[in-house]
Amino acid sequence: MRKEHFDQIGRAVEALKKKGGVNVCYFVACGGSQAVLMAGQYIFDKETKVPSHVYTANEFVYDTPESLNENSLVISCSHSGNTPETVEATRLARERGAMTIALSNSEESELWNAAEYPVHYDWGKEVSDSDKNKGILYGLLFSLLKVLEPKEKWDVCLRELDKLTELSEKAKTQYQEQAKQWAKENKREKLIYTIGSGINYGEVYSTAMCWFMEMQWIHSGCIHSGDYFHGPFEVTDYDVPFLLVKSIGNTRFLDQRVENFSAKYSRKMLILDQKELPLDNVAQEAKPYLAAILSGVVIRVFVEAIAFERGHSLDVRRYMWHMEY
Amino acid sequence: MRKEHFDQIGRAVEALKKKGGVNVCYFVACGGSQAVLMAGQYIFDKETKVPSHVYTANEFVYDTPESLNENSLVISCSHSGNTPETVEATRLARERGAMTIALSNSEESELWNAAEYPVHYDWGKEVSDSDKNKGILYGLLFSLLKVLEPKEKWDVCLRELDKLTELSEKAKTQYQEQAKQWAKENKREKLIYTIGSGINYGEVYSTAMCWFMEMQWIHSGCIHSGDYFHGPFEVTDYDVPFLLVKSIGNTRFLDQRVENFSAKYSRKMLILDQKELPLDNVAQEAKPYLAAILSGVVIRVFVEAIAFERGHSLDVRRYMWHMEY
Repeated sequence: MRKEHFDQIGRAVEALKKKGGVNVCYFVACGGSQAVLMAGQYIFDKETKVPSHVYTANEFVYDTPESLNENSLVISCSHSGNTPETVEATRLARERGAMTIALSNSEESELWNAAEYPVHYDWGKEVSDSDKNKGILYGLLFSLLKVLEPKEKWDVCLRELDKLTELSEKAKTQYQEQAKQWAKENKREKLIYTIGSGINYGEVYSTAMCWFMEMQWIHSGCIHSGDYFHGPFEVTDYDVPFLLVKSIGNTRFLDQRVENFSAKYSRKMLILDQKELPLDNVAQEAKPYLAAILSGVVIRVFVEAIAFERGHSLDVRRYMWHMEY
Repeated sequence: MRKEHFDQIGRAVEALKKKGGVNVCYFVACGGSQAVLMAGQYIFDKETKVPSHVYTANEFVYDTPESLNENSLVISCSHSGNTPETVEATRLARERGAMTIALSNSEESELWNAAEYPVHYDWGKEVSDSDKNKGILYGLLFSLLKVLEPKEKWDVCLRELDKLTELSEKAKTQYQEQAKQWAKENKREKLIYTIGSGINYGEVYSTAMCWFMEMQWIHSGCIHSGDYFHGPFEVTDYDVPFLLVKSIGNTRFLDQRVENFSAKYSRKMLILDQKELPLDNVAQEAKPYLAAILSGVVIRVFVEAIAFERGHSLDVRRYMWHMEY
């Protein structure tokens, strides 16, 4: 992580120490950024005694939770820093006295000015993955956890984030051929569901909502592995495509159950098993976190492959950016 | 509400009083029951200072939140009372010392025995809607709120629940013709999305996952009105069908924005506006709650109509109940 980012996170951490903790944490953003923050909500829920909640920013603005006050922490995120709902939610949180941390790629944005503790992340081809949005989010979370639930583990996890660029490159190479094959076979599909659980839910949420629906106009829906058998699985058929992220974390059993079922009733279940990720040289306690980030990297390989086969660039939009809505 | 139900809820309320409050509330269930409980999470978040969270039961079992302890309240629900994941989650919660309340239609079920405070609800044609699952859930919630956030409003809301049967009948009659028409026009559709916000999100979640995917094998996905413009709206086209519940609550603006957009770019957006529900004789403070329940009733009218037109009974399953999974 670059020193600038390290220092920005450090300021937030010092403030949290001074504050002596918080009663609740809200993760607030829209679309893909909201999906990224879902991992934060997962980590808070499983690793701290601070309850937390993910909000789409406009619900937070129009129907604000009763607990939002000077004992709350609000972590928001917007790539451009100009998403109006997220800016407004962050302003509102700060007005109510909450501690506000915002992640953004832009240091001259409204979001940057709205939050008390803005944290920058890098973007683009030449930068380290530990300085991109997810690297910075996890870096921030592990640093906050050192205050909220002090454990040696968090220093280990922080250190392991530095391996992200190297591991991402490995993972991309590893899945290239499979992705090409899958893309060729699925390029005519009009609908692809996504399934996942635990810390990976955000990744499959953004795969459905952003990669497939927004950027490929492929119909999709996101299903939690735990809820698949309580309704959605009835649409399963040999020719209905799914993408399943199979966790190496505590919810692996839930994903395994989906795989077992699909082995009998589907020929179109793409399974991305985190056990196959190049995690051998990663410390045990950091594996589920790095696996979640790398699953996003691998999904992107598949999405880029299908975008290529379909001749539908990931940059094309018909409504977004083109009109008022 | 029948005296038996009133007394069962009363026991839970007395226990909460004695306990002096809780730090966090978990709503835990699967599928349709989980969707019903989502309204509970909404109400807790907007009306109390007790943070709350909805969990699909198996994630709660395999990846238990760190805050689950003797200061937690866990509210679970299973119609048969035998959903293994929900039974196990309730047992686990009780072992950890949490206060456990379970809703079920069966007083001889495993769930009934697993929870410290089981609450029965009725089912079928001849019973009052205030004694069915949602009536009982809201009755329980308003009663708990009298302890957690004492306000006159909760007594008013409790009283208004008694009007549910009459209002449901009115709503069913009111939408019958429109539903028939919509069903005829949409019976060949292979995919219908659902959209909603705030307290209604659970209704549109269960419409997608249970009514459409499970019981009609129609593809679907559930979109939050606030997130629609941050990705999913790119699949909108004149011939892509959506079902939008338009709230009378605080998030109405979010739903209105979806409607405004769809007026320009879609000819297949079914809008169920809660302003049109027969709520004239309902006290102002109870309207958003009764509207949420009645939206479920109205959606069912549309689902029954399309099931009839498609000749696909709502009772048909290909996997559920037929095999081990």
